Amino acid sequence: MNILHTTPTADGYYMPAEFEKHSGCILIWPERSDSWTYGAYPARRAFVQMAAAIARSEQVTVCASYAQYNNARQALPAHIRVVEMSNNDAWARDYAPTFVVPKNKNSAANGLRGINWYFNAWGGLVDGLYFPWDKDNAMANKLCDLFFADVYDASDFVLEGGSIHVDGEGTAMVTENCLLSKGRNPSMSKEEIEQKLKDYLGVTKVIWLKYGIYNDETNEHVDNICAFTSPANVVLAWTDNEDDPQYAMSKHCYDLLSKETDAKGRPITIHKLPIPNPVCITKEDCEGLDNMDFEPTRTPGERLAASYVNFYIANGAIVMPGFAKPGATDEANLRYAASDKTAKEILAKLFPEREVIQIYARDILVGGGNIHCMTQQVPACL
Amino acid sequence: MNILHTTPTADGYYMPAEFEKHSGCILIWPERSDSWTYGAYPARRAFVQMAAAIARSEQVTVCASYAQYNNARQALPAHIRVVEMSNNDAWARDYAPTFVVPKNKNSAANGLRGINWYFNAWGGLVDGLYFPWDKDNAMANKLCDLFFADVYDASDFVLEGGSIHVDGEGTAMVTENCLLSKGRNPSMSKEEIEQKLKDYLGVTKVIWLKYGIYNDETNEHVDNICAFTSPANVVLAWTDNEDDPQYAMSKHCYDLLSKETDAKGRPITIHKLPIPNPVCITKEDCEGLDNMDFEPTRTPGERLAASYVNFYIANGAIVMPGFAKPGATDEANLRYAASDKTAKEILAKLFPEREVIQIYARDILVGGGNIHCMTQQVPACL
Repeated sequence: MNILHTTPTADGYYMPAEFEKHSGCILIWPERSDSWTYGAYPARRAFVQMAAAIARSEQVTVCASYAQYNNARQALPAHIRVVEMSNNDAWARDYAPTFVVPKNKNSAANGLRGINWYFNAWGGLVDGLYFPWDKDNAMANKLCDLFFADVYDASDFVLEGGSIHVDGEGTAMVTENCLLSKGRNPSMSKEEIEQKLKDYLGVTKVIWLKYGIYNDETNEHVDNICAFTSPANVVLAWTDNEDDPQYAMSKHCYDLLSKETDAKGRPITIHKLPIPNPVCITKEDCEGLDNMDFEPTRTPGERLAASYVNFYIANGAIVMPGFAKPGATDEANLRYAASDKTAKEILAKLFPEREVIQIYARDILVGGGNIHCMTQQVPACL
Repeated sequence: MNILHTTPTADGYYMPAEFEKHSGCILIWPERSDSWTYGAYPARRAFVQMAAAIARSEQVTVCASYAQYNNARQALPAHIRVVEMSNNDAWARDYAPTFVVPKNKNSAANGLRGINWYFNAWGGLVDGLYFPWDKDNAMANKLCDLFFADVYDASDFVLEGGSIHVDGEGTAMVTENCLLSKGRNPSMSKEEIEQKLKDYLGVTKVIWLKYGIYNDETNEHVDNICAFTSPANVVLAWTDNEDDPQYAMSKHCYDLLSKETDAKGRPITIHKLPIPNPVCITKEDCEGLDNMDFEPTRTPGERLAASYVNFYIANGAIVMPGFAKPGATDEANLRYAASDKTAKEILAKLFPEREVIQIYARDILVGGGNIHCMTQQVPACL
């Protein structure tokens, strides 16, 4: 694996959209007991379903620590590859490499490459979520090596994969609250950050939403509120309830996107994807979480950043979260079931050639993210 | 990765000879400071040369612990892949999988498969060389998964890859001193062990040498004394010095092989490969070794199991040990230089289509094995 000190854009590389063809998908086995309730056992059940759903249409590689390797290997279907890799937590989206591919089949450029951004646990010593993050941060290079990809060294720049979305046609989408946060690149101006994205993602335009999802502890990653479903089309997490703090945030994004065009000058069609009723952490959840640095990591009643936008686009499927507990028929779960169904129908219409697979993902959400956050696609290369 | 409970032979698989085409080679980065002198720094210099020599003609994958990953990555050439994998020591030959491939291109069988023998550190609680060996023993399955190979479960049988050689045409070669040792499969008869080899390696004949190399702490692995160079041709470690304890051991093997035929009924041509002057461990070496379980692992003056037979057959090269310290002109080193040259010439004649690359390997030998012991080929698949 060569470490490259040029930039992808200068070398004729770009980050393809998630809806373009993949050669595979990277996941990380959940383990830490201060992130995942009850020793991560409930989260792993959802994880195994998610991994199996993705593996129906692309090769899945799951990274597991030495301690958890055998557990992961036995829990996962045989056609999923499990590799040993040390990690601090399970968010492949945020610290597996951002992969780039050659823009032009006939250029001198060839082969898959990755980008190694610096990862500091969503805010480092300012407002990061755990310490240390060294094992996570080492994963991008290791994964590039595993996949025989050279790697661009962007380790002077703090970025997580979940904080960027691209359309593969020159447009990136991010949130100001995340990319301009004090815990990431405080010495860089918005213009400098935008230039960095242009240099590394092969884009010519960056759309800056202001907000993400209410109470999202990643400083509001874009991948929880808004995602490209095809060029010039996005889904936006939405609520009509003006009393919900999410309303103003989503409305702001809606208004901004309504006036925006993409890199090719096309107006953007916004498909509203209603959020579920608030999903809050319970006392029972909190009792199943180990303390971190002598402090609880969650408080009973805290609202989690639940959103249906946090789906993964596999080659043959949309793998999306659901919040209705299977079999539960209480009022709250019936309401989740209704919003699960609506969201599924919306995505099914937007991705007519893909099967939509919904996974009960509350036990993943409690860990601080959702299905998209746990995945990283490996694009197919020309 | 599927775990298979059938046998390779029954499924139409066999272990190809090392001189058949490879798709790659597996190595493990040396680390433990009670095996390798001076914190493994000298051994790693030889290791890097060895890895680079092999990588000239096949894809090399080096496994390194989390702690040593960055060191390994930086020391090794970029085109060598480094993957994180926990280990107890660096002997890929003995606990990386024995790979098998389909015998018949047109059979239903397809794809690379591996065998997971049980590894117990060359004798377990009877006369094993370290404890525990769990990380080593877990590597065969992990490596099969890494290489997308299903794996035969032979974990009820203790075997190291260095204790077997095959000609790819139905013949295996082993030593009695190793395979019938008390620390491996004491409840099995010689006939039962032979049947196991036939079931898993796709061979119909097993040649049982009695001895290996004098003072070889593996209970005399065959790969240090005798190796197939082509069907019906072997090199045998040899000395004409009748006072050397090696003489009687090599002579016994010679006499046995002289009367033997291979699986196809061909007599075996024996090419003598003279051993170097005894290589002994020094006080300085011993002072550079951490103690193991409060005991020194080596005693000054102890003779090491030096042999030129411990070479690796890469696609385009023979990578073999040398014992003359580069640049040293003292009497002892001049004698090593002379035997190094003789051995190199013999192998060059036997492998006319391969470049012979000699690596100064004393610092590997001190760890208890040599170049062949540190490698495991991944055969090319039909």
